[in-house]
Amino acid sequence: MLNQRATELGSAPNKIRELFAYGLKRKAEIGEENVFDFSIGNPSVPAPDAVAESIAELIKEPPCALHGYTPSPGAAGPRQAVADNISRRFGIDATADQVYLTAGAAAGLAIGIYAITNPGDEIMVIAPYFPEYAVWAETAGCTTIEVPAHEPDFQMDIDAIDAAFTPKTAGIIINSPNNPVGAVYTRENLEALAALLSRKEEEYGHPIYLISDEPYREITYGAEVPYVPTLYKHTIVCYSYSKSLSLPGERIGYIYVSNLMDNAKEVYTAVSGAGRALGFICTAVLFQRVMEKCVNEPSDVEAYRANRELLTKGLSELGYEFVEPDGAFYLWVRALESDDEAFCEKAKAHELLLVPATCFKSHGWVRISYCVSADVIKRSMPAFKALMEEYK
Amino acid sequence: MLNQRATELGSAPNKIRELFAYGLKRKAEIGEENVFDFSIGNPSVPAPDAVAESIAELIKEPPCALHGYTPSPGAAGPRQAVADNISRRFGIDATADQVYLTAGAAAGLAIGIYAITNPGDEIMVIAPYFPEYAVWAETAGCTTIEVPAHEPDFQMDIDAIDAAFTPKTAGIIINSPNNPVGAVYTRENLEALAALLSRKEEEYGHPIYLISDEPYREITYGAEVPYVPTLYKHTIVCYSYSKSLSLPGERIGYIYVSNLMDNAKEVYTAVSGAGRALGFICTAVLFQRVMEKCVNEPSDVEAYRANRELLTKGLSELGYEFVEPDGAFYLWVRALESDDEAFCEKAKAHELLLVPATCFKSHGWVRISYCVSADVIKRSMPAFKALMEEYK
Repeated sequence: MLNQRATELGSAPNKIRELFAYGLKRKAEIGEENVFDFSIGNPSVPAPDAVAESIAELIKEPPCALHGYTPSPGAAGPRQAVADNISRRFGIDATADQVYLTAGAAAGLAIGIYAITNPGDEIMVIAPYFPEYAVWAETAGCTTIEVPAHEPDFQMDIDAIDAAFTPKTAGIIINSPNNPVGAVYTRENLEALAALLSRKEEEYGHPIYLISDEPYREITYGAEVPYVPTLYKHTIVCYSYSKSLSLPGERIGYIYVSNLMDNAKEVYTAVSGAGRALGFICTAVLFQRVMEKCVNEPSDVEAYRANRELLTKGLSELGYEFVEPDGAFYLWVRALESDDEAFCEKAKAHELLLVPATCFKSHGWVRISYCVSADVIKRSMPAFKALMEEYK
Repeated sequence: MLNQRATELGSAPNKIRELFAYGLKRKAEIGEENVFDFSIGNPSVPAPDAVAESIAELIKEPPCALHGYTPSPGAAGPRQAVADNISRRFGIDATADQVYLTAGAAAGLAIGIYAITNPGDEIMVIAPYFPEYAVWAETAGCTTIEVPAHEPDFQMDIDAIDAAFTPKTAGIIINSPNNPVGAVYTRENLEALAALLSRKEEEYGHPIYLISDEPYREITYGAEVPYVPTLYKHTIVCYSYSKSLSLPGERIGYIYVSNLMDNAKEVYTAVSGAGRALGFICTAVLFQRVMEKCVNEPSDVEAYRANRELLTKGLSELGYEFVEPDGAFYLWVRALESDDEAFCEKAKAHELLLVPATCFKSHGWVRISYCVSADVIKRSMPAFKALMEEYK
């Protein structure tokens, strides 16, 4: 018999991708300029020139060494570059032997969740959230416990997290800047979480791990994004260069098991074993080297910043309510009726492709991805206006 | 608590890598030319020039599209290129929608095993075998049933496979050309396996899947390597370009769910779901495109062929017994005492780095990787001679 769970996962419609596919079809029907596709989070800012320049240099090297296997956690140079980058930026003494390169944050999360749990454990997530967290928790034999964020600012609700704790809680996943909300957790909010987790460690007599999913760390508009390992010792950072260097398809990121942890070596060992268990050999090696060369390239957020201004100004004037977007390239807008899926269907009639909150295990809101050309935002305003009028 | 299994996997010494590391240290001590490192299977033939040329062309494309996400099974063009290659070479009508690109054969195997099993099932393997098969089977909650190959030709022992079947058997993994033995299964041997599996399908009333692990398909020296899907319908091919294009670190390969299968679509759905469950998003996209451009490049086996001649001639003259190496770049040599680990230790004293059969769940033999420079082989002969004399 085929694997039942894999069959279900393989059959489950991915609504975001379906919407994106609908958009492509619709554009072919009525013209590209008449469809306002805010469905997906593919960076619209090109990778820095340094990426192509690095590749052009690297392919002059002898091919056997260039394309050969690296150790599972990655080659020495790229891991050292990550450690140096962390040390320089966040003032902690990060070492390369605590850095494990991964095929993007997705692999990092799947590996990290597996490493810190045993079957039967619980992993806490803050809803709305990236739904694959629950998939990877289930692969590890764990249950996902959803704790709704505090509305309408979508900071973490510390009391709700406290209430959701059980002796089976192995860890919690946080994502700031946040997909889908665009919120950035304040230092105060993170400190409150850290204090709670420390209390729970004391209470239960074992570590509670904090997995910090950070693909949007560099995509911010002025808000502070505190470095979580400096606030809580049992932190595992899952980072990705997908957004910061606009390389989502190349699958390059890392797990950093904080050096500030008392049992850092043991956690790193479990991470290595989890990577092996899940079928990872090493991260694609050319992009390990590209990352090494480009790790200090600044992220270009100006286009996203301009889009954010255009979109928030436009939607404000039309009377839409949204969460102040401090980071990432998503705007979280309150649906004009409680059924967000029905709202998105009505938006579709105006050629507006929005993702309902139900895709992120929440409800009553929609996600607008503004990693698009500014022109799409400008031309979409009459459609948003007409949609609003429909509800008046 | 940290994951117990991941901790064990992360702590388990990888003997082959340890040997390789010892070799590097030893070379530093006594000079590179005095250590004969036959431990690892990193291709010594460089990637074809077409690889660097393709990359140089590709980086002229607009970066957002070039480095963007593809659908999980891969971009349309590369998948079509694989399907066309299979159709042309093996005379079956392979379609792109049955091709799922993977991060090498390792990811393909982890995904394939997960897809065709449910927890509690059994997966059969032919010993000696690549030990990670058992790791991935365990990740899927399955038990690995080892069936020793027929000695001394190391073809499959069909009667032993028959005897090992139980109602829990979900599938069997085969690997021809074989790592570590270098044997290629004959058409007759494969046909006998196919006949057995068909009988078992009838007997148990459900499909028995055959996973054909084929990273060494192109590395052969004249022997026929029959295309398994043409012999048995429920075949899943796990292919890799690691060896054929000398790109092991770039992690590019594929799963092909044979179109000749009655339930091909269902199996493919389970494969897609298994990829999701294990944390794979898509295969690194630049190398999807490189593969698309280089898929029909011939593999350069001449250096391996020359090494094979040198090594087999030399060891024959010294009186060593080995399996006739029809494919891959491994020679499987009988240890000169029953304890292969002790034999390898003695070889080490002669600066010969050989991998004991116990690393592949077998015993009494050693693996020699001859993907090295011809010079290493030539200069190693006095050491092999001295080792033989020690046992006389």
